[in-house]
Amino acid sequence: MELDFTKSDGLVAAVIQDAQSGRVLMVGWMNDEAFKKTVETGYAVFYSRSRNKLWLKGETSGHRLVVKEISTDCDRDAVLLKVEAQGPGVCHEGYESCFFRSLEDGSWKVKDTQAYDPNAVYGN
Amino acid sequence: MELDFTKSDGLVAAVIQDAQSGRVLMVGWMNDEAFKKTVETGYAVFYSRSRNKLWLKGETSGHRLVVKEISTDCDRDAVLLKVEAQGPGVCHEGYESCFFRSLEDGSWKVKDTQAYDPNAVYGN
Repeated sequence: MELDFTKSDGLVAAVIQDAQSGRVLMVGWMNDEAFKKTVETGYAVFYSRSRNKLWLKGETSGHRLVVKEISTDCDRDAVLLKVEAQGPGVCHEGYESCFFRSLEDGSWKVKDTQAYDPNAVYGN
Repeated sequence: MELDFTKSDGLVAAVIQDAQSGRVLMVGWMNDEAFKKTVETGYAVFYSRSRNKLWLKGETSGHRLVVKEISTDCDRDAVLLKVEAQGPGVCHEGYESCFFRSLEDGSWKVKDTQAYDPNAVYGN
């Protein structure tokens, strides 16, 4: 179950994909402990680079990610998690996916509508 | 078109997804120059952390990635590229996707069959 945590300061990139629709929902980071907790609990646990600690995705919002399948890439420095997302969206800005902006004529344009009101979930 | 390159030593994670099937094919890294070249040329250009230089994906194999759509996430430190992959696979080990191993009973198991012979493409 070994991963290569040496290339990104003890972390691997974790791509989160909706198991049903195939939509890429977010990219998070995992250290060894976060990865092990993810495997043990069946819920995605990340390492927050800004807060320097583990976080169970959904601990505030209730929008947990139920892990259906975990893959790794050829050099084992990234993981791909197919998940069932509990709740309407994974993005703290209220969108289904954190990738709600696309490049159009050299600028990032919002391409989605919000799936929920982030103020109601996270508070102001 | 600004991205946040400060969190990963000047790089952003670039998730490559097949535009047709939705399969996640690989995760690469881009610095500002690689990202701009990707946008300008319409082919995915990465920054190699091991070789410390830009690489046009497919420069050896011919298996280029034609970019169909580029999205970024809420904090702009990752990009998602929907692509049309030229050639049978993006992985230098001969698979369609670099994510050809999944976790099963605590071990990584190969879940795919090779899509091409890497020795014929990359040489021995």
